[in-house]
Amino acid sequence: MTQIPHPLSALTVAESDVARDAVLADHEGAVLKFRLIFLLEPPKAEVITFLDLEHAGKVTAETPRPVRTAQVHYDVIGGDNAAVYQESVVDLSSKKVVDTKIVAKVHQASLVLSEFDDLVNACKESPLFQEKIAALELPKDFEVVVEPWPYGAPEVADGNTRLFQALIFARDASSGNPDTNFYAFPLPLIPVMDAATKKIIRIDDLATGGKGDPLKGQTHKPAVLEHCEAAEYVPELLAGGVRKDLKPLTVVQPEGPSFAVTDGNLIQWQKWSMRVTFNPREGAVVHDIRFDGRSVLYRLSMSDMTVPYADPRPPFHRKQAFDFGDGGLGNAVNNLTLGCDCLGVIKYFDGVLTGADGSANETKNVICLHEQDAGINWKHTNWRTGRAVVTRRRELVVQFIITLANYEYIFNYKFDQAAGITVEARATGIVSVVNIDPGKTSPWGNIVSPGALAQNHQHIFCVRIDPAIDGQQNTVVQEESLPVRMDKRTNPNGNYYEVRQTPITTSVGLDAVPQNHRVFKIQNTNKLNPISGKPVAYKIAPPATQLLLADPNSVQAKRALFAQHHLWVTKFRDDELYAGGRYTLMSKNEVDGVSDAADRNDDVLNEDVVVWSVFGLTHNPRIEDWPVMPVEIMQLHITPSDFFTRNPAIDVPSDKDLGSKPTEGCCSKL
Amino acid sequence: MTQIPHPLSALTVAESDVARDAVLADHEGAVLKFRLIFLLEPPKAEVITFLDLEHAGKVTAETPRPVRTAQVHYDVIGGDNAAVYQESVVDLSSKKVVDTKIVAKVHQASLVLSEFDDLVNACKESPLFQEKIAALELPKDFEVVVEPWPYGAPEVADGNTRLFQALIFARDASSGNPDTNFYAFPLPLIPVMDAATKKIIRIDDLATGGKGDPLKGQTHKPAVLEHCEAAEYVPELLAGGVRKDLKPLTVVQPEGPSFAVTDGNLIQWQKWSMRVTFNPREGAVVHDIRFDGRSVLYRLSMSDMTVPYADPRPPFHRKQAFDFGDGGLGNAVNNLTLGCDCLGVIKYFDGVLTGADGSANETKNVICLHEQDAGINWKHTNWRTGRAVVTRRRELVVQFIITLANYEYIFNYKFDQAAGITVEARATGIVSVVNIDPGKTSPWGNIVSPGALAQNHQHIFCVRIDPAIDGQQNTVVQEESLPVRMDKRTNPNGNYYEVRQTPITTSVGLDAVPQNHRVFKIQNTNKLNPISGKPVAYKIAPPATQLLLADPNSVQAKRALFAQHHLWVTKFRDDELYAGGRYTLMSKNEVDGVSDAADRNDDVLNEDVVVWSVFGLTHNPRIEDWPVMPVEIMQLHITPSDFFTRNPAIDVPSDKDLGSKPTEGCCSKL
Repeated sequence: MTQIPHPLSALTVAESDVARDAVLADHEGAVLKFRLIFLLEPPKAEVITFLDLEHAGKVTAETPRPVRTAQVHYDVIGGDNAAVYQESVVDLSSKKVVDTKIVAKVHQASLVLSEFDDLVNACKESPLFQEKIAALELPKDFEVVVEPWPYGAPEVADGNTRLFQALIFARDASSGNPDTNFYAFPLPLIPVMDAATKKIIRIDDLATGGKGDPLKGQTHKPAVLEHCEAAEYVPELLAGGVRKDLKPLTVVQPEGPSFAVTDGNLIQWQKWSMRVTFNPREGAVVHDIRFDGRSVLYRLSMSDMTVPYADPRPPFHRKQAFDFGDGGLGNAVNNLTLGCDCLGVIKYFDGVLTGADGSANETKNVICLHEQDAGINWKHTNWRTGRAVVTRRRELVVQFIITLANYEYIFNYKFDQAAGITVEARATGIVSVVNIDPGKTSPWGNIVSPGALAQNHQHIFCVRIDPAIDGQQNTVVQEESLPVRMDKRTNPNGNYYEVRQTPITTSVGLDAVPQNHRVFKIQNTNKLNPISGKPVAYKIAPPATQLLLADPNSVQAKRALFAQHHLWVTKFRDDELYAGGRYTLMSKNEVDGVSDAADRNDDVLNEDVVVWSVFGLTHNPRIEDWPVMPVEIMQLHITPSDFFTRNPAIDVPSDKDLGSKPTEGCCSKL
Repeated sequence: MTQIPHPLSALTVAESDVARDAVLADHEGAVLKFRLIFLLEPPKAEVITFLDLEHAGKVTAETPRPVRTAQVHYDVIGGDNAAVYQESVVDLSSKKVVDTKIVAKVHQASLVLSEFDDLVNACKESPLFQEKIAALELPKDFEVVVEPWPYGAPEVADGNTRLFQALIFARDASSGNPDTNFYAFPLPLIPVMDAATKKIIRIDDLATGGKGDPLKGQTHKPAVLEHCEAAEYVPELLAGGVRKDLKPLTVVQPEGPSFAVTDGNLIQWQKWSMRVTFNPREGAVVHDIRFDGRSVLYRLSMSDMTVPYADPRPPFHRKQAFDFGDGGLGNAVNNLTLGCDCLGVIKYFDGVLTGADGSANETKNVICLHEQDAGINWKHTNWRTGRAVVTRRRELVVQFIITLANYEYIFNYKFDQAAGITVEARATGIVSVVNIDPGKTSPWGNIVSPGALAQNHQHIFCVRIDPAIDGQQNTVVQEESLPVRMDKRTNPNGNYYEVRQTPITTSVGLDAVPQNHRVFKIQNTNKLNPISGKPVAYKIAPPATQLLLADPNSVQAKRALFAQHHLWVTKFRDDELYAGGRYTLMSKNEVDGVSDAADRNDDVLNEDVVVWSVFGLTHNPRIEDWPVMPVEIMQLHITPSDFFTRNPAIDVPSDKDLGSKPTEGCCSKL
């Protein structure tokens, strides 16, 4: 008998195939089109039982393991060419479908790439589309590029029809280089496709006016690209070429990395241990995060994000992506050797994606793991003796990168030697632009290139933190530092401030208040620090970034309730993973998202809690974001606070104690 | 004739000696004790005239240069052993004193290290001090350590007497290692010295109680260190030694750095140019910062900082340091080869400090310059072709580090290829502790080690930004992104938000409002971006950190008015450099600081403006900060916003285009 895989490992290709076969058997005679097959994680209670044994060194070949289950998303193709979207759960030991629900009619399935292909074809075959393109008098050698988008923030009139929209650009094909930047040439129309019929049902004309112009109505000349200009970024097309004065700077690890990866996905590094998996909804997920054998987090993941655009001219309100929930994350993920993404010694992890026929396809290098130096970590000089002790900050980075049409996001889970965790999101790629008439400026965005208006928008992320601070029973405490009036008895010189702690007793959404230095501690009140006497804890300082700006009554806002608070505290439920709800594509409301979870008013005092951290970026583009924007970096810090009995990095050797010092390396003097 | 040095260069040793001699000649027969001698920067108008010629390539040997002047701080020792503190300005061309003011009686001079020596000696010679120490029944082999501190936040009763205080610790000398950590053994007394008589005039007993105990009164047992425990950080004393599993990670630059340093202090790197100087009040200062030949900032400096402690028990309100203004920065600065502080190829700059006899002493390696990698800078993958273009973010770092008794601060001015500037402060070192009775906890701090209470405190920094956005006439504009109600005419779908700009017309202090995404743009309204039509600008996003918490009526608050707003806009005046005022030692009010400058109600629209950014850290210590705290990192970002016509880093080559790729270097696969 083959051993059941570790409960915190992704589906293998073989397991995925078992799941597919079970669903096919369950639908004998029907035509199925598969969307996704991935692990349905076992109930936490079962996993914890297993992990307790594992970390006690008591797992043997006979130790029972949680039953493995797969979730299978697929369409049953009916006789009328319509598809019924269903989700089944397959028990991989019995190889049987144990649960099936029909999702279509209530929610939309997340998109798959073939639907984008359908949209491109539908445009090609639409006489109306061709007619509208012809009217735009494209320059010689320009060809049309269809950029499929989810149909965000739908209107009531759209009903439950599954729709897709596309932004349309034109590409200068004269150079023969397939990577000329078509985004510099936006065309003012958005075709809409009915996914069932695969036909263009409507083409929305886009306003191209500016300040003072009405929200609707065409003002552009027929030759709509006449004033647009090329904006290349691939080196061989760059006017002036690349700069020549940048000398190589490389990272050398002559003895290899300090981490070890065993058992497929178990990472051990500098007292940290964790498991990493990949799935097509959340990308890289980090599980069972421990330091020095002590449990810190059960699970850490990018739960959701939304990117609403703020141009009020219809139909631009439909430019609102949920880049995780709308689907395509699995398809959007970068294979990390296409570009040179990291320095040093890199370990890559592969993922498993699903073909339309249900086949499991290994996709290479979707997660990378490496170490990096992040400057000084601690230093002290004894000025009496002149003795300086200085250590550097080494970080372990779990990274994945996604490309969503024009944009890219770089996600890093960083672990440092002082037992801190940083979740970092970097936004880069090409800002989304639409055509604007020559000579006009706009209150809705910025002209980043002649004829190209980059619209104002927001990026709002949600990180799901499932803590396990020395166990599952945790309490979230809000801590503020508050001024206190001068007072003879308690504050005679006025220098005192109060540190006020307020335990969170009921599930809720809370906000950052930086003027109060509001932080949140995730405590285990059952275990006191032997030195300070305070509960062992990790601390979260919620980034005080702007929340969702859209009117609360707008569809944009209603489908992204998660984006309206900085920090949510909920009571754990199995498979409650997605802040914006399980089904975001064309959603009109956030259903079963974190807001609903908070609304249960669960008791969260000394319970198995989940903390959801929301942060983001209001992005009013500047010209410097064009044609590819320098990274905007957002960080969330999760740091120990009376969890240990000293600085966990106090035993890190200085670089000079590390041995390796090549001539051009550390501390060479110029 | 020797050529006059560049106006943006620090005093040479020879110039400093000329200044000393001029002051000595001016006081023939008197006994002088020198404190500081450093450059009084020439009037900006004169420097600009010179820089305009210089950047036009028109400077010759005959070009007139601004007259060099030195400021000399010194005491005239009188017959009654009292010293009169004076400041003179010396014209280095005529070698004459051109201005002298007597500062004493109005303000205190910043401290010099000899005053700390006096304090240590005064304790040694004080029978009262010895008597009190004897009563504390120190363990065998423990010796007393006197830690001099400025006498912060004085009381009215203290008058104008120049006072110093000391925290007292004990050091376990039994190991023979001079670097045992004495901070783990705090003694409950603070001696106070009169600087004129060099006598201990008073010893304040410290309360050692906890929660519920009164603010005054002794509760400790005679053997006050009985419950304290060692907390070592030097590797050879560390219980368990250093960890063994960290493998070397080094930075190799086989072709050397990408920067060039010429003319003593002119740095050129990746389209950036700037000059760097060192002075004993601000540390490293960066001047005439340009990108691609265009002026960005005239001057960038750490202007001030204050560290107020929040323990209400007298005399702890006097624990308030101004680590730049109180003096000692020049003495506190680290010589950067004592520890291995950077990776890669490093260029060091020396500084000039002043001896008590006025001698100019070169101090080695007080500033270091190096390049570092900071992850991906921009990336885009064309999903149609699979072509990924990715560049890394290289940064140039100007660094200096200071040690102030227990604490250290690491200051970085970072310049990136996308024309952004980051000012970074890292706080590390040893948190300040006082003795607490066994078994007690405290509302005023945290027990980080048995018997050691780390008191709550704040660190508030002020960065002075003297902008020159394509010239000196600049305007600061506040920009907010604000929600707009759904409205049929202007916001039919509710997705619109307004970007509202408000020019700052009059000098003022302003606050961060992150919920409005409040940012500030420093514009040159006389020059419009040719693509966007908007004024060329750089943007500052003020970090929304907590401001000073002390009661506004407290001395702590009154002497640190700068710490009560996040961003000040003032009109430029020569030699107005210090946010907390020129004289902070024992100050009772902030005098001639940024608050006074703002109160002039100057017109700042299209004027020569100065922007002062205030940010900090409310530091309620955690055990993990002990015995040496991992860095807390604070960053201020100054980024171009429609200053250029595209991403200034778009021409950065990918690493793979850079040539060097050793086996263990970039992109090696595990």
